[in-house]
Amino acid sequence: MSQAQLMDGAGLARRIVEETAKRAADLKDRTGAAPCLATVLVGEDPASVTYVRMKQNRSRKAGIESRHVALPAHTTTAELVAALEALSADPTVHGILLQHPVGPHIDERAAFEAIAPEKDVDGVTLSSYAAMSFGLPGFVSCTPGGIMRLLDEYDVDPAGKRAVAVGRSAILGKPVGMLLLGRDATVTYCHSRTADLSSVVREADIVVAAVGRPRLIRGEDIKPGAVVIDAGYNPGNVGDVDFDTAVTRAGLITPVPGGVGPMTIAVLLEQTVTGAERQLGF
Amino acid sequence: MSQAQLMDGAGLARRIVEETAKRAADLKDRTGAAPCLATVLVGEDPASVTYVRMKQNRSRKAGIESRHVALPAHTTTAELVAALEALSADPTVHGILLQHPVGPHIDERAAFEAIAPEKDVDGVTLSSYAAMSFGLPGFVSCTPGGIMRLLDEYDVDPAGKRAVAVGRSAILGKPVGMLLLGRDATVTYCHSRTADLSSVVREADIVVAAVGRPRLIRGEDIKPGAVVIDAGYNPGNVGDVDFDTAVTRAGLITPVPGGVGPMTIAVLLEQTVTGAERQLGF
Repeated sequence: MSQAQLMDGAGLARRIVEETAKRAADLKDRTGAAPCLATVLVGEDPASVTYVRMKQNRSRKAGIESRHVALPAHTTTAELVAALEALSADPTVHGILLQHPVGPHIDERAAFEAIAPEKDVDGVTLSSYAAMSFGLPGFVSCTPGGIMRLLDEYDVDPAGKRAVAVGRSAILGKPVGMLLLGRDATVTYCHSRTADLSSVVREADIVVAAVGRPRLIRGEDIKPGAVVIDAGYNPGNVGDVDFDTAVTRAGLITPVPGGVGPMTIAVLLEQTVTGAERQLGF
Repeated sequence: MSQAQLMDGAGLARRIVEETAKRAADLKDRTGAAPCLATVLVGEDPASVTYVRMKQNRSRKAGIESRHVALPAHTTTAELVAALEALSADPTVHGILLQHPVGPHIDERAAFEAIAPEKDVDGVTLSSYAAMSFGLPGFVSCTPGGIMRLLDEYDVDPAGKRAVAVGRSAILGKPVGMLLLGRDATVTYCHSRTADLSSVVREADIVVAAVGRPRLIRGEDIKPGAVVIDAGYNPGNVGDVDFDTAVTRAGLITPVPGGVGPMTIAVLLEQTVTGAERQLGF
């Protein structure tokens, strides 16, 4: 059986981060200020702590300063909003990342909306989402933005193709569908209530799996030669795509790990430097 | 040949407006203040003048006061933004409608964004769109909101069905797709770059034609028994659906005129009263 070409997200992410680090260094040379990403964490969930630490490490390596705001688990919505508003107003902070989920007692949407749009480098605010949907300037959600960069890297032009987003979350499924629509794909959204998911996915020239169900999409669901993007995260480094069977049908496929994952942080860092450049009038 | 049942938008709109008028009268009885819709028109385009006048007339009949702001054709973006900001800040105005398109020399998006979200009864701001996309509270785009009401009226439950939006405009195609997705349909967006539009439309249990091309969707494109919503406006009261052929295949179909059109104004008036109720603490 033929084997799909692997889409090397790790390699592309590395090149984006290198380029970002050059821009960060250049910015610091010319303005004296390094780009600064504020990370905000509520509580001490171990996975969230790990994610935030990873983002801080990657930032540092790219010449981006981190400002960490650690808030106790019992932080209220009002307290979190106040902290985010303070960062939004602080001219030495250029990007703000609220690690989420934030816990059920907090109004996450209210917290996101306290992030100034020009510092929303994680692309989580309502206005960032809408701007992305309408093709207006602004920051994109990082994972969807990373997926589009991967498609470009492998010369996949979505125009006129059928694309299927499996999943409809606010930070992944919905925005990636909107970005693909903006690039002239015919876009279908699938989800848990979709009848006969396999047959819908089989229509797709481009599949983005973004639902968080291990190995939901199998080889037999893939149109031969399709581009398969696995944006699922499940325990044990398992994606939403059953890689072993899908790789024999797809034309291009992202591995897990090393596919979409590294792109998310690369786009976060890149957008942070872009935000800093704009805010510093560079 | 069988004939589809007609979806009587005119009749449903009339009932919604009657209910809205009762709420407006009740609000005035209890607070002394009538709901007030501000209409803003730039220039004197005859079609726009007619639309605004119609909205004013319908408002008056429903017990909603109109405040009309007529601006000359040479109005700048900054002047229009200032006018909209003033209305946004005016406590006697509860809803704001900017008649659009506003002319190529004006940044329409900047103008829309000057409308306070709580007065955005036409559902045109970025935050209204995003809130609608995420199922959060807020005002919907009027035509998409009217379409959902029509579906409810005829007991069409989108959950698990395939829905196709033909068109991807910011006020019609994109939001109606998001509303259908929020109601658990499997949603596909088609547009001018879609390959083999007929075969995609033929997959649909629910078709929303919203592209502004006369009679683009023909009977042979319709899956037998499908629900066909014609939201197209073309000269001569012609929709985007070829009614005469589609009516023999569809299960339910909106006529043009008398289908979607009347629903748009009904939802505008209803949202204006809702806005007034909220702003007056009712």
